Amino acid sequence: MTTAPTIGVFDSGFGGLTVLRALAARLPHAQFAFLGDTARLPYGSKSRRTIARYAAQSAQFLAREQGAEFIVIACNTASALALDAIQDAVSVPVLGVIEPGAEAARAASRTGDVLVIATDATVQSHAYAAACQARGLHGIEKACPLLVPLVEEGWTTHPVTAEVIRIYLAELNAEAAAKGLNADALVLGCTHYPLLRPLIEKAVPAGMRVIDSAEAVAEAAVHLINGRAAVAIPKQEAERPILSAPLAERMGAEAGLAPHAAQIRCFATDSVDKFERLGSSFLGRPTGKVELVDLGG
Amino acid sequence: MTTAPTIGVFDSGFGGLTVLRALAARLPHAQFAFLGDTARLPYGSKSRRTIARYAAQSAQFLAREQGAEFIVIACNTASALALDAIQDAVSVPVLGVIEPGAEAARAASRTGDVLVIATDATVQSHAYAAACQARGLHGIEKACPLLVPLVEEGWTTHPVTAEVIRIYLAELNAEAAAKGLNADALVLGCTHYPLLRPLIEKAVPAGMRVIDSAEAVAEAAVHLINGRAAVAIPKQEAERPILSAPLAERMGAEAGLAPHAAQIRCFATDSVDKFERLGSSFLGRPTGKVELVDLGG
Repeated sequence: MTTAPTIGVFDSGFGGLTVLRALAARLPHAQFAFLGDTARLPYGSKSRRTIARYAAQSAQFLAREQGAEFIVIACNTASALALDAIQDAVSVPVLGVIEPGAEAARAASRTGDVLVIATDATVQSHAYAAACQARGLHGIEKACPLLVPLVEEGWTTHPVTAEVIRIYLAELNAEAAAKGLNADALVLGCTHYPLLRPLIEKAVPAGMRVIDSAEAVAEAAVHLINGRAAVAIPKQEAERPILSAPLAERMGAEAGLAPHAAQIRCFATDSVDKFERLGSSFLGRPTGKVELVDLGG
Repeated sequence: MTTAPTIGVFDSGFGGLTVLRALAARLPHAQFAFLGDTARLPYGSKSRRTIARYAAQSAQFLAREQGAEFIVIACNTASALALDAIQDAVSVPVLGVIEPGAEAARAASRTGDVLVIATDATVQSHAYAAACQARGLHGIEKACPLLVPLVEEGWTTHPVTAEVIRIYLAELNAEAAAKGLNADALVLGCTHYPLLRPLIEKAVPAGMRVIDSAEAVAEAAVHLINGRAAVAIPKQEAERPILSAPLAERMGAEAGLAPHAAQIRCFATDSVDKFERLGSSFLGRPTGKVELVDLGG
């Protein structure tokens, strides 16, 4: 048996563990190194320049120090604002979460009108709107800055959270209606939001599909690993070398094994206790011992 | 006329502008340099080690690059977890916000039982409980991590915010009652919270005094500048040199002039636009042009 290659997964915090969970379920023979840049979170309220610097350092840690042969940016903000900077910083293929999310919306929407909820920085980048437009969709984005703190407070089923979701979605639907749009899909454009999926499903109009960008990027990663890059890979990444065939074989891209079969090592730049305490609800299994790393920031 | 000395004021974000506002009203002849370490906010969810490193770098910027002769830490989290580290990092006097807040609670409380609301990190440090205990008070602390995001979302008078405050205070009052305490003062242990004061005043039981730590630290700064250090200065700071008499004279510690008389320069490590946009509601006047600085993080 060959050595399992390492897939690096990166987020500003531990929300990206929802992406790792989806990846591990699909790539049970891979090894994963997850880095949460918790000392500098949240990225969602910061500038492009700062986010690019932090994200590039994080990707370099995964590629150089953990030997990652493939990197998934499990953070919508970093994908939206820093994909180019990360690709420039490392020599291995890098997959962001925005394009797969938009691709999943294209597959789900009949009307072509798509709602996107995300952090401030992701929305201000208009990365989802651009990715939708490139697919002939009309995307309307809304920043929902209270949702991450509500998830981190553990209020994932709380009436206050339901009310905040109702307010945000009412504002977003009103904006879509004012533009004469008939949206039938909602993209969860932040890796924290899947934990609010039950409340969000209750709040959306009947018939609206809820798209989990964590699931979408995991699907795209498997496609990329299997060399079927045409399906969901963004233009920038398609121009880069995709994984070699032997590497794809070693990754064992097949379904059916339980996610706990994959080997996972977690790293954080701060708050290891909090990561271990809250991370399991995102990952769907214990994170194991989280190792503290210093990126010098 | 002698050159006005510079007072450095530091926060992880721009919540500390409420402290600067209170200082400028009391020291109209001083110049102020305010630094918001916005690239690395919030401190409130991070570890002591990381907070100490960030705060020391910020204080050094104010002392070395802005020539601050006196530094006020307008951040409860940094005061609670990093006062020693900051004092070690610079050679000028440093005043934190915790001890003045506890001192104001002592002056306000008749029962000696005091409630404190603050960020996660401030509460976990138990800095307020210790400062209360040193004054013969019994302090009960509660982390309220949703309040900062609600203020930054601009929901300072929103029904959702009122409900979140009601829930947090009900839990805190229940805990105090279970311990047989009869609290009659509530310390706002975060510089964002003064913007929620109207909602908080409505939510507390009749007769409970609400203590603004921003006002308390400004009072303490004036005492320190006037050499009356015994009133509100923590032990660590009393052991340090207080301001020299000529410096105190140059600071013009007198009341009566409007806060817009003081000269204020604002610096941020990120998000200058957001700082300028939201900062004025904290400062009570426009922030002016905010200058971007790089602390290397």
